[in-house]
Amino acid sequence: MKGKHLFTLGSLLAVAAVVLGYQKGAPRSPKEDRNVAAVRAVIEAQAAAWNRGDVAGYMEGYAKEETTTFVSGDTVTRGWRTVLERYKSRYDTREKMGTLAFTELELKPLSEFYMMVTGRWQLTRAADTPRGRFTLIFRRTNAGWRIVHDHTSSE
Amino acid sequence: MKGKHLFTLGSLLAVAAVVLGYQKGAPRSPKEDRNVAAVRAVIEAQAAAWNRGDVAGYMEGYAKEETTTFVSGDTVTRGWRTVLERYKSRYDTREKMGTLAFTELELKPLSEFYMMVTGRWQLTRAADTPRGRFTLIFRRTNAGWRIVHDHTSSE
Repeated sequence: MKGKHLFTLGSLLAVAAVVLGYQKGAPRSPKEDRNVAAVRAVIEAQAAAWNRGDVAGYMEGYAKEETTTFVSGDTVTRGWRTVLERYKSRYDTREKMGTLAFTELELKPLSEFYMMVTGRWQLTRAADTPRGRFTLIFRRTNAGWRIVHDHTSSE
Repeated sequence: MKGKHLFTLGSLLAVAAVVLGYQKGAPRSPKEDRNVAAVRAVIEAQAAAWNRGDVAGYMEGYAKEETTTFVSGDTVTRGWRTVLERYKSRYDTREKMGTLAFTELELKPLSEFYMMVTGRWQLTRAADTPRGRFTLIFRRTNAGWRIVHDHTSSE
């Protein structure tokens, strides 16, 4: 009987965890774990693309939509293609791209469809090491998890 | 019969809108409209508090939690009280606070529990007019909708 009660209690807790999971820092469900792993893989693929000088590959992490936004300083850039052009013009040589590292990554599922990712970026270049922080909003799209909003700031 | 078919079609579309609503730019449900109005009211109350020199009142818009984060430049500030202290030390006179205006507000429900808000901030002060952009993540808490993450950048 004791085992059965524990099993029932366990089931109730599991249901409660799913219901409350997105509200606060509750334990992640296996599905959330899979989503977190998928988003982490997108970010790692972006860094790898950047570090082989592949800006277009880096941009594969962003949703190819008109509504995709990139915010930096007092400027907002709207639309996947416009964000791509911004990156291409700012990082038009391998030297300017340098080596990108993402650190202090925190992935927080907000729902079945959205995840917030915060972290630190740094470029290591011959002349300097620009760095700062970012807040990304990922959405689960038909193509997989993609960035729909990026707010990046610099030191 | 035609009217009944239209009614059935209407019901199906309404259900589809709720299911798909959080995924993309679908029309908002009445519930989402209410959530958007509630979040907008919090932001307006924050600006009003700021503009009467009430930093503590402004901070009522943030969730009073250890996990509340404020990101700016390359710095992350964690915890409601730490964020309050940061504001208090940076804006320790009425002159430094100036007059705050939020413009270009966009409120995007991400789920029943989360909403993203982007916009522009500007302080009008005797000496200068600092400005920039922000990305806020609101969560529906027991106390109402509150900011759990703020990424602010400056011109």
